[in-house]
Amino acid sequence: MFYHDNKLQYKVRVDKPNPVFANMLQQAIGGIEGEIRVCLQYLFQAWGARGPVKYRDMLLETGTEEISHIEMLATAVALNLEGAPLSLQEEMTKDKVIGAVMGGMNPRHVLSSGLAAMAVDANGNPFNGSWVVGSGNIAADMYANVMAESTGRVLATRLWEATDDAGMKDMLAFLIARDTMHQNQWLAVLEELGGLKGMHPIPNSFPQSEEHQQFSYSFISTSIDGNTQAQGRWSAGQSMDGKGEFTFDPAKPFGDEPMLGPPDPRGHAQTEQMTGAADGGLMDKIKGAL
Amino acid sequence: MFYHDNKLQYKVRVDKPNPVFANMLQQAIGGIEGEIRVCLQYLFQAWGARGPVKYRDMLLETGTEEISHIEMLATAVALNLEGAPLSLQEEMTKDKVIGAVMGGMNPRHVLSSGLAAMAVDANGNPFNGSWVVGSGNIAADMYANVMAESTGRVLATRLWEATDDAGMKDMLAFLIARDTMHQNQWLAVLEELGGLKGMHPIPNSFPQSEEHQQFSYSFISTSIDGNTQAQGRWSAGQSMDGKGEFTFDPAKPFGDEPMLGPPDPRGHAQTEQMTGAADGGLMDKIKGAL
Amino acid sequence: MFYHDNKLQYKVRVDKPNPVFANMLQQAIGGIEGEIRVCLQYLFQAWGARGPVKYRDMLLETGTEEISHIEMLATAVALNLEGAPLSLQEEMTKDKVIGAVMGGMNPRHVLSSGLAAMAVDANGNPFNGSWVVGSGNIAADMYANVMAESTGRVLATRLWEATDDAGMKDMLAFLIARDTMHQNQWLAVLEELGGLKGMHPIPNSFPQSEEHQQFSYSFISTSIDGNTQAQGRWSAGQSMDGKGEFTFDPAKPFGDEPMLGPPDPRGHAQTEQMTGAADGGLMDKIKGAL
Amino acid sequence: MFYHDNKLQYKVRVDKPNPVFANMLQQAIGGIEGEIRVCLQYLFQAWGARGPVKYRDMLLETGTEEISHIEMLATAVALNLEGAPLSLQEEMTKDKVIGAVMGGMNPRHVLSSGLAAMAVDANGNPFNGSWVVGSGNIAADMYANVMAESTGRVLATRLWEATDDAGMKDMLAFLIARDTMHQNQWLAVLEELGGLKGMHPIPNSFPQSEEHQQFSYSFISTSIDGNTQAQGRWSAGQSMDGKGEFTFDPAKPFGDEPMLGPPDPRGHAQTEQMTGAADGGLMDKIKGAL
Amino acid sequence: MFYHDNKLQYKVRVDKPNPVFANMLQQAIGGIEGEIRVCLQYLFQAWGARGPVKYRDMLLETGTEEISHIEMLATAVALNLEGAPLSLQEEMTKDKVIGAVMGGMNPRHVLSSGLAAMAVDANGNPFNGSWVVGSGNIAADMYANVMAESTGRVLATRLWEATDDAGMKDMLAFLIARDTMHQNQWLAVLEELGGLKGMHPIPNSFPQSEEHQQFSYSFISTSIDGNTQAQGRWSAGQSMDGKGEFTFDPAKPFGDEPMLGPPDPRGHAQTEQMTGAADGGLMDKIKGAL
Amino acid sequence: MFYHDNKLQYKVRVDKPNPVFANMLQQAIGGIEGEIRVCLQYLFQAWGARGPVKYRDMLLETGTEEISHIEMLATAVALNLEGAPLSLQEEMTKDKVIGAVMGGMNPRHVLSSGLAAMAVDANGNPFNGSWVVGSGNIAADMYANVMAESTGRVLATRLWEATDDAGMKDMLAFLIARDTMHQNQWLAVLEELGGLKGMHPIPNSFPQSEEHQQFSYSFISTSIDGNTQAQGRWSAGQSMDGKGEFTFDPAKPFGDEPMLGPPDPRGHAQTEQMTGAADGGLMDKIKGAL
Repeated sequence: MFYHDNKLQYKVRVDKPNPVFANMLQQAIGGIEGEIRVCLQYLFQAWGARGPVKYRDMLLETGTEEISHIEMLATAVALNLEGAPLSLQEEMTKDKVIGAVMGGMNPRHVLSSGLAAMAVDANGNPFNGSWVVGSGNIAADMYANVMAESTGRVLATRLWEATDDAGMKDMLAFLIARDTMHQNQWLAVLEELGGLKGMHPIPNSFPQSEEHQQFSYSFISTSIDGNTQAQGRWSAGQSMDGKGEFTFDPAKPFGDEPMLGPPDPRGHAQTEQMTGAADGGLMDKIKGAL
Repeated sequence: MFYHDNKLQYKVRVDKPNPVFANMLQQAIGGIEGEIRVCLQYLFQAWGARGPVKYRDMLLETGTEEISHIEMLATAVALNLEGAPLSLQEEMTKDKVIGAVMGGMNPRHVLSSGLAAMAVDANGNPFNGSWVVGSGNIAADMYANVMAESTGRVLATRLWEATDDAGMKDMLAFLIARDTMHQNQWLAVLEELGGLKGMHPIPNSFPQSEEHQQFSYSFISTSIDGNTQAQGRWSAGQSMDGKGEFTFDPAKPFGDEPMLGPPDPRGHAQTEQMTGAADGGLMDKIKGAL
Repeated sequence: MFYHDNKLQYKVRVDKPNPVFANMLQQAIGGIEGEIRVCLQYLFQAWGARGPVKYRDMLLETGTEEISHIEMLATAVALNLEGAPLSLQEEMTKDKVIGAVMGGMNPRHVLSSGLAAMAVDANGNPFNGSWVVGSGNIAADMYANVMAESTGRVLATRLWEATDDAGMKDMLAFLIARDTMHQNQWLAVLEELGGLKGMHPIPNSFPQSEEHQQFSYSFISTSIDGNTQAQGRWSAGQSMDGKGEFTFDPAKPFGDEPMLGPPDPRGHAQTEQMTGAADGGLMDKIKGAL
Repeated sequence: MFYHDNKLQYKVRVDKPNPVFANMLQQAIGGIEGEIRVCLQYLFQAWGARGPVKYRDMLLETGTEEISHIEMLATAVALNLEGAPLSLQEEMTKDKVIGAVMGGMNPRHVLSSGLAAMAVDANGNPFNGSWVVGSGNIAADMYANVMAESTGRVLATRLWEATDDAGMKDMLAFLIARDTMHQNQWLAVLEELGGLKGMHPIPNSFPQSEEHQQFSYSFISTSIDGNTQAQGRWSAGQSMDGKGEFTFDPAKPFGDEPMLGPPDPRGHAQTEQMTGAADGGLMDKIKGAL
Repeated sequence: MFYHDNKLQYKVRVDKPNPVFANMLQQAIGGIEGEIRVCLQYLFQAWGARGPVKYRDMLLETGTEEISHIEMLATAVALNLEGAPLSLQEEMTKDKVIGAVMGGMNPRHVLSSGLAAMAVDANGNPFNGSWVVGSGNIAADMYANVMAESTGRVLATRLWEATDDAGMKDMLAFLIARDTMHQNQWLAVLEELGGLKGMHPIPNSFPQSEEHQQFSYSFISTSIDGNTQAQGRWSAGQSMDGKGEFTFDPAKPFGDEPMLGPPDPRGHAQTEQMTGAADGGLMDKIKGAL
Repeated sequence: MFYHDNKLQYKVRVDKPNPVFANMLQQAIGGIEGEIRVCLQYLFQAWGARGPVKYRDMLLETGTEEISHIEMLATAVALNLEGAPLSLQEEMTKDKVIGAVMGGMNPRHVLSSGLAAMAVDANGNPFNGSWVVGSGNIAADMYANVMAESTGRVLATRLWEATDDAGMKDMLAFLIARDTMHQNQWLAVLEELGGLKGMHPIPNSFPQSEEHQQFSYSFISTSIDGNTQAQGRWSAGQSMDGKGEFTFDPAKPFGDEPMLGPPDPRGHAQTEQMTGAADGGLMDKIKGAL
């Protein structure tokens, strides 16, 4: 169950409002690298957690923290929109730099939200629930979380570079630090779960004897001319999970040409697909083969 | 540049076509854990690769391999749809088990594709390009790839459990093996890039002196009653990146109550939002504060 | 800022797990009538609130409560999925009723989430941020909220009818009660803001003298044969906002035939669109008119 | 059944074409507040209307009128795109103000539509059928309609402020007037259906004796520090539906800690989730409790 | 401008309501092959038409007719949902065939629309405005229209096969006939615009001297083993547009290996991407080449 | 199965990087007219091909070629982003033309991809799998392909006009030539399949005797005032498929007013919808009619 107070987790100050930066910040709210995604991802993982309770509890804690991050960023967007231009004529008659600003704004910040944050990314794409990963396999989920905090911290550092507003840099320096912690946090779970050699291949509960093991540690090169530079740690030596040896092998087909049956007449393909009239008997060959 | 032959990478055989399983297989084609996603993800990462060429080349190789996996799965879907029921009356008059089958089919396999695979998942959601992650930071991308191959392998083992068709189990045993390799492959890159201590926090090119370091290794507990079980490797001891010590700290606000300016009259809020008539002078307080 | 404890707002009990009902409950989580929508809607309205502080605070309170509702429903989904069938053969060899069940399940509850809730609706459509309405006009937003709680309560009563599980009926009886309150709550704001005559037309800050008032209270009938039964409170008498008299008027055009310019050659329309060769001089007429 | 003539419902004149305003107008066509949404919403409500015929007929009338509004706006977009820049070099060598213009244009107005309107909003998001609300409950639907006309009129007044083109202001003054009428029209239905006390809680056909009535009129405050300003009409006094008394109550949990079963082995969670090895026996506690 | 009467274009009768067929019919309403798509497509093409007026008028006529088709199908969906099961217990206790039915229903027909049509397809995917094609090039648009009516007629014949309800077969026989006409209609425009030799390559207003003509009529075979059967009318003889001769050529690269610059430090790639430490000097080669 | 080399199909050179043009190029990658769409469309048509093998093989060849086109365009995007501005201050203090540039850029090219291409269009809309058409009817599919190559070539010529970069014009001149070929290629299949008279109406396997033939070649005019100019090849003379004569007929209804049953009480419509209290007995009329 959830509670709140009416303060922010960390202070949000905008010295010089900038509606173009407001739009950029939307990526950290409603984007695939953003805070709504991690918030819902950690909460859904918690709510569906089967297994040790401590992981569920930890996910619940950090999922709750992320709501506070959305709040900070939404506040930052609103503050960056203070005094934003609301009309085209205002744009065109004043300093032309403002003209450039309007080009980089999200027009829906004027038209749809009345100068407030929305649940969208920096292209105006709405937040999409398909980004919320919770697989029921905790190791896979922890990688999803490390990945989310890694792309999230990359995003935050780019936002930090994009602005010279001291207030915004201060807020982002807090969020960047939290991303540092959260990367470490999910990695700590991965260590507890057995580390590389204990966890992989994920899921580690599937018996590897059932997979076709001659393909389990082979780097398959699809290059037709042998002119590849794709050699590295992955093409020789012990595999990362300690269960095999890497090899480097040229691609070749182990299967045959696929052969589907003729169309069912009630599916209303063209008659020519069913009679073979168009291809000089090839159709008969198909039918013969089935 | 790309080439093909007309064979399959591995054989695809369906002993007993099952249109419900055809629908399940769609998750491995057009789902977020599926092969279109990894195919485009590795190729876009390759095409945008800046830095060492060998990573670009490796991504290109494996991205190309994944096209062959889409092809195998699309073939498997078509073969599972051979003889699928095309009419409701056929359903109802024959064995009632078939009635159950039609409920679990994707009706668009009949209506839209004529008994062939589509670029959708097992709920009929179309493949979505937002799932294709390529951040320009190779470590973040490798985690995205490990995550994709982990949820992908979890999916493949669940498909393996869901069917007792020997042909399908054989094909999945091949794909599961390839996912084993690909998990190892991306992990190998992460080792080459410095391992946990060298890579993290990602991006490692941002100076940590610029982040607010008192928050960088603190597990923040949002639990209001102290009744949490969220202690573990992440709440004490050296951080995974070797750059700090984990602590466990109760959440508290470091910021103030946010305070936005009044609405711009041209944004046409309600008059009462602008005059404060509705709240006995609270609005004046806002205006005073700005 | 946000906090949590590890209990549920109201008890969630499932007497007889039913994976088909699990799928139905998803509508109340990730659907347009669902709890993620109202949660984010109230929170975003709070975070963007300009004007009286009490409305912001109230939105923050109820937005926070809604997180607890998502949690309850997500728990209910997971409990309804306990023991769900994981394989097709299991289905077919046992009681045929189970076969029917699998048809009504969401296969991604098996394949993607491992028997847990997802951020999707009952068709597997992912939650979509475009549903989060916050216009910056508080009266419009309150109507969005009344509407959300009305369709939400309709949904909850339908779920209540669909199940005979006593635990689920108990949980829904709680959620239905909360929807009752929330409808009343947003209506109370609308009364405070002036009621029908004070609030409308929304936004009430736009001077009605600027709109074309001969069309402001006219019911326009597009029926070509006068054979309409569309008479009612809206076709005569004082308007609801007290600012006009309803009339009932047949539709007629007040504008002319639209006339666009010819294609810009660099936009590469077909040559025939630019020369008018295809229509015996009609193109010349267009050009002449411009 | 539907008919047309080749005139516009109201005249559409653009004195000074502006491709940035063309993009803004798209919000009123394909946006969530736009005319395609209300058009389809009213028509689908009509086509699914069960109950009094006059509401169906009224919805059909106004749904038909809205097609004419899409037509007016699509014409306005095309006229605002007359003479829009088609090449970047044109931009850069002429007046820099034009450079600003191109930044605010939708590039797909050049690339995809050849200077014509599209079924998208001002961010280029395609119109989405999920926005079309028709619940089968006429009161809920009427609120959806009041809400749509309220956010729609807010949008139209913002577009009116954004332009100083006399032709566009004239067209918008017509559309704003129609939104005035349509707000009043749906409110009139709500009055006919019984007004606040007769209609609520929606649906009024569900027996309130079945809901948990101790929660039906309670404002639940999730604030942890009692420092909320969220008091108002909704926290004391008779409820709006006349069926209860508002109270103001602090949030507290009425449920227990949720407890899910262990993972099904065939769902391939990590082994550690199933054995409890990772958490010192917590797993056993779970198993014991089930 | 648009008008209506309250009759249907053609009679809609359902002899034996079937909620599974109701779901299938949704494909013809809100699917990519469906009527909302063609309706909006023809109307948007009309509203953006530049060039001969007669094409605009024709598009307006047929776009208007399509609204009547949506109406017929929406009515058919509602009629097929009469008496549909609203509860799971009802399902399980009665005839098991009904159990199968519920699996094939759209649960949102119960939960969201109250037994009425929605703006979605047979998988519950909402109608998507991106499907509305209007390119500004009339020949391209006519092909989009032929294609829409072809996939639409294929869909309608499959629906006709899927049902044995005489009323539904009658309605579909009408819609199939209209699709016949509309295919012919758009083909007639293509003939008027010059036929194959006059129209192609589309756009015919781009000077072919500017394209690299050695590639304009070459079938490029990407097959690596020469084992292709892809010979036909397209691999030899005069091209369809009469402007070249088809040839059959093996694929080969005409470009070099792509070479991107190193990462900008402010974009926060990993340090190893910028220093080349990880690949033994390959990075220096890149830098040298730029 | 698929292979690659590490060269490009045609050279990609950017003389003067332009991040606004990079954004425009995205339309040709991830847009509905773009290369991901045709690539997957041809491949999925091949993988689902039932009937003559040579069409499957041809589709496989050209689908493979299209991967190489995505690669070229992705490379072009990355090259156009070299040196793009990464911060707002950089923008504002230098030449104002750069300010205009940033307005036209995709901010996610900085924030999300680190100056590389993404799987999105020029509005940032992610690629959508619903655009991949494969109907199982080869004639319908060939029209889908002609249409895709026609809108694709229109797009490419507009991009050619938008830039004066010689390298980009050279690359586009190659792609335009390939679109010329591909239009011709799909048209050649259509000729082989019987041409207009043999193929239409599509599907040609449905017996026309089953459709309501009095409507099969009638142009239905929905114009209420007879003031239409919609006469042409389609309104008189032999139909294009040679199977009928075109006529021009005014629209009139052949169906009755639709009449749905009353709401099921468990669907929780408003009480007034079920009792008819609100409309003076109209409801009774409905019930009487059923």
